[in-house]
Amino acid sequence: MIVPTAGTSGADVRSLCRRGEFRGQTSGIASGFVQCNVVILPAPSARHFQDFCERNPKPCPLLAMSPEAGNPTLPALGDDIDIRSDVPRYRVWRDGELSEQCEDIAALWQDDWVAFALGCSFSFEEALSEAGIAIRNIEEGVNVPMYRTHVPCLPAGPFSGNMVVSMRPMSAADAIESIQICARYPSVHGAPVHLGEPSQIGISDLMRPDFGDAVTLRENDIPVFWACGVTPQVALEAARLPIAVTHEPGHMLVTDLRNKDLAISK
Amino acid sequence: MIVPTAGTSGADVRSLCRRGEFRGQTSGIASGFVQCNVVILPAPSARHFQDFCERNPKPCPLLAMSPEAGNPTLPALGDDIDIRSDVPRYRVWRDGELSEQCEDIAALWQDDWVAFALGCSFSFEEALSEAGIAIRNIEEGVNVPMYRTHVPCLPAGPFSGNMVVSMRPMSAADAIESIQICARYPSVHGAPVHLGEPSQIGISDLMRPDFGDAVTLRENDIPVFWACGVTPQVALEAARLPIAVTHEPGHMLVTDLRNKDLAISK
Repeated sequence: MIVPTAGTSGADVRSLCRRGEFRGQTSGIASGFVQCNVVILPAPSARHFQDFCERNPKPCPLLAMSPEAGNPTLPALGDDIDIRSDVPRYRVWRDGELSEQCEDIAALWQDDWVAFALGCSFSFEEALSEAGIAIRNIEEGVNVPMYRTHVPCLPAGPFSGNMVVSMRPMSAADAIESIQICARYPSVHGAPVHLGEPSQIGISDLMRPDFGDAVTLRENDIPVFWACGVTPQVALEAARLPIAVTHEPGHMLVTDLRNKDLAISK
Repeated sequence: MIVPTAGTSGADVRSLCRRGEFRGQTSGIASGFVQCNVVILPAPSARHFQDFCERNPKPCPLLAMSPEAGNPTLPALGDDIDIRSDVPRYRVWRDGELSEQCEDIAALWQDDWVAFALGCSFSFEEALSEAGIAIRNIEEGVNVPMYRTHVPCLPAGPFSGNMVVSMRPMSAADAIESIQICARYPSVHGAPVHLGEPSQIGISDLMRPDFGDAVTLRENDIPVFWACGVTPQVALEAARLPIAVTHEPGHMLVTDLRNKDLAISK
């Protein structure tokens, strides 16, 4: 039996999920492979959600979507992907509220469902780490802290809400380098959206994140804020759709794409 | 008689200087053309100065130097440049101290002198303005504020000293965009070297710059610091050479290069 590690491939992780042999968090496994946030919706809402992503590309960077309604593959991300079984753990939402958590959605899948795969911060965290920039939440072994802001997204159909951001504290020099690195990765949230004073974007207390865990702030740290993939989940709650499916946070779809191939210039 | 304006070409500005018809500051004239800091040294020191520039490319971005000692042209920057007459105003330094200011150095020029042309912040200020980012010192009609830091340059021969930085206050969003824009212009100081708390780089009071003028700091401003072309002048003072020549601050060599051609990627 394969135990997923940093050296496991994206295809191997998906195969383990499909066989029910892996249901864990995907942080730190399949190094180098792009991991994605997943949103699955019935076709009538899917067009609006696509618009929402295209209007808000920093929090909702759309990497791929179903070739057509009802098709559970994502050929842009891997040859053999079956989105009904290849994510370690799913959340089912009914009327905007979390209804159940499950390991497979084959029984739920409808022939008008559309899957969306959105870029995830794991890709740029890898690029930052490779440049020698320490990521505080990784150092401290916790989830990145995330906050609701007062910055509105552009609405589309039933989808609306304020942007959610993730925060990584670092030195000014590392912040400047991080901005240059992340600007090369627009499909995984791109450059930060804010730095410095949290209250300017509506965050009152960095030690009380709305999602994830607080991290230590050290002297000379500047908090740096990136648009976050939790934003579409908040928009999904606001939309109160009869049914929708997402991945369980931290339990991402692991693809065959390479993080380094997402860079738009050297 | 030509009056130099934003629409004047670099060649026209130099021609006016050569004929003694223009001796003014070059800020705001010959828009789009690269302007340069100038340092002129006898050959024995020139090799060390070239090393100093190459070891400290952010404060001392070397755009061009004399084809050989004694040659007063700079063909890399313009067909007809005569560095003895084409700068509006010069400073002569003896034993590291300002000795005289003059409008022409033909009578001083020696056949072992070497001229260096270094990139200048006017180029990136133009790129920022074109992106819609307001430059406070331009808005307020004053020189940019510049500060001595405690950040040491890498020494070379007699040249040493701490980095001098210029400061432009702006919103966090503009700071993030400025970093991305300036990173494309490594030959004109590149991305900022610091942002936020001034004391982290040894600056005690933003309202008391060491060179240039103070500018207004507004609520929600972040001070953003760039490596500055005054750094080589400080290193020149420290070197206490028997003789050296620079441009008078603000009175730059205007070249035939275009600012936009300095960008390393689109």
